[in-house]
Amino acid sequence: MSLKTQYDNGNIFAKIIRGDIPSTKIFEDDNILAFMDAFPQSLGHCLVIHKTATATNILDIETADLNKVTSAVQKLARAVNAALQPDGIRVAQFNGAPAGQTVFHLHFHIIPIYENMDTSQHGESKASDPEMLQATAERIHQAL
Amino acid sequence: MSLKTQYDNGNIFAKIIRGDIPSTKIFEDDNILAFMDAFPQSLGHCLVIHKTATATNILDIETADLNKVTSAVQKLARAVNAALQPDGIRVAQFNGAPAGQTVFHLHFHIIPIYENMDTSQHGESKASDPEMLQATAERIHQAL
Repeated sequence: MSLKTQYDNGNIFAKIIRGDIPSTKIFEDDNILAFMDAFPQSLGHCLVIHKTATATNILDIETADLNKVTSAVQKLARAVNAALQPDGIRVAQFNGAPAGQTVFHLHFHIIPIYENMDTSQHGESKASDPEMLQATAERIHQAL
Repeated sequence: MSLKTQYDNGNIFAKIIRGDIPSTKIFEDDNILAFMDAFPQSLGHCLVIHKTATATNILDIETADLNKVTSAVQKLARAVNAALQPDGIRVAQFNGAPAGQTVFHLHFHIIPIYENMDTSQHGESKASDPEMLQATAERIHQAL
């Protein structure tokens, strides 16, 4: 099997969970963290991860833990829709570098799509202004 | 809200569920149907849907039903990985036509990625040979 499943505690999301590096949080509980993608493909692009399940991808997470993540993805997608009123929403989850995975801690992307705004390709987007990210996170948080 | 949530019983996946039109099935139980995408972006591209939840997208499905779908997505992703040994797997779920949704019955794509094979873009792939689809479905089914 060529899909990497060895979890590395030094990955950037593990550091965010431990608080070693900052993130723009939208929602957090004992299991789940939702935060803004620092390189957003569109306004409101956010990520949902499990905080304690050390799984690199969808193949190696316990199904109960996966369902906590996907329940949160739905909750966030509804909040993004209510707060930002996009014309569409893409949910994406990449497994393995050839599929586009860059951080090897299982995560789901929630990417709002707007008909009158370009959407960047994965891996080609620029870092967002921190104040803009914070303001967007607050708008989504208030719609939860 | 601009995301369409009115379910239309005439959509193509509703017809597949009712047996009005054929599909290349991989797995089926009382709740879930997994079948080959007839316009695959890569070898093994398959879809997972709920059979009775009449939800157009991730916003309007009951969370318990969503989790049945995502549990099956994991099961199928593991089987695709075991059967076809891709270099990566993309999981994608589109909400609203501007996000790429073409059939308005909630569905998840499982798209294997191979380093030595091109992956088509969504909406730009060609119909697959039915015998090829059937053979691939059987390989995945045997790995379930």
